[in-house]
Amino acid sequence: MEALKEKIISEGKILPGDILKVDNFLNHQIDVAFLDDIGHEFYERFKDCQVDKILTIEASGIAIAVAASRWFGNLPVVFAKKGSAGNMEDFYSVTERSYTRNMMVDVRVAKQYLNKGEKILILDDFLATGEALEALISLCHMAGCEVIGCGTVIEKDYQGGGNKLREKAYKVESLARIASMSPEDGIRFI
Amino acid sequence: MEALKEKIISEGKILPGDILKVDNFLNHQIDVAFLDDIGHEFYERFKDCQVDKILTIEASGIAIAVAASRWFGNLPVVFAKKGSAGNMEDFYSVTERSYTRNMMVDVRVAKQYLNKGEKILILDDFLATGEALEALISLCHMAGCEVIGCGTVIEKDYQGGGNKLREKAYKVESLARIASMSPEDGIRFI
Repeated sequence: MEALKEKIISEGKILPGDILKVDNFLNHQIDVAFLDDIGHEFYERFKDCQVDKILTIEASGIAIAVAASRWFGNLPVVFAKKGSAGNMEDFYSVTERSYTRNMMVDVRVAKQYLNKGEKILILDDFLATGEALEALISLCHMAGCEVIGCGTVIEKDYQGGGNKLREKAYKVESLARIASMSPEDGIRFI
Repeated sequence: MEALKEKIISEGKILPGDILKVDNFLNHQIDVAFLDDIGHEFYERFKDCQVDKILTIEASGIAIAVAASRWFGNLPVVFAKKGSAGNMEDFYSVTERSYTRNMMVDVRVAKQYLNKGEKILILDDFLATGEALEALISLCHMAGCEVIGCGTVIEKDYQGGGNKLREKAYKVESLARIASMSPEDGIRFI
């Protein structure tokens, strides 16, 4: 998605610790017109798949999943929750390592929102080592759902998470794939 | 908003601790077509105000703010973050008591996303004691922004937070206002 690559170049910031910050349009402030273009692009990439539901994870994933849902005729969106169970009673859960926060977090979905046989499209903002997507895939499998594909806005290809999933025959579509990134040399896309 | 009241009656669950759970369409699974109606209703209630930006708080507020933004011509949305500062560098922050989790949490917005003189519409899912809205209002004032109003999807009127803000002359619009609620007698709206 060329417009996304341009936006990453012009508005993204590379921080120490191999972090790409796109708070200006996705992770803190949201450019809603551009978000709609992102949703449309996911639709284009997955429109030939039968999808029953979109699964994402809080917080930034929510805006992306809702934007995509509109293009898929307002499919239900479910967002997995992180951290304490709060008032959730009967749920599937897995533990994943958060890349940004470098800590283990519980990820959970109430059982009633993932039903056996449903075809799930998983969407998220970033794909690096792939732990978040793997957690969401695990939740789907616990529920007996079929993962029809995974879409992420930005993939840091060199961290290998996306390709690990592709090797397992998952359809993984990322709207911008970063080949390399450094404060000195900037960002190169695949 | 009659359709919302009907949805709360048919899909909401009253839990111990005076919790109203609407995970079926707003806080865990999202009914995206209905979310658009919610966005439209906020537009109707605030369309006569000049709004530069919509401010909300993660996680559930994000979907609501994005849905409303579309009706306001894709206004920028900023979502305040909870918990650790992560990779945020220069920010405004306040501490609020989370009603659902019964703990103190830091709420923050990067300084660059709230600019002096901007007219801010604050949107959130629930209004109970009003601590979340008050935290967001404080962040706006720290930045020198003007709060033109607050909109919430569900207000538990009997907890007083909304009326406390109205007494301070804030325009507070809630799409469903609950007068009383109990597992025995169900939900009564204002």
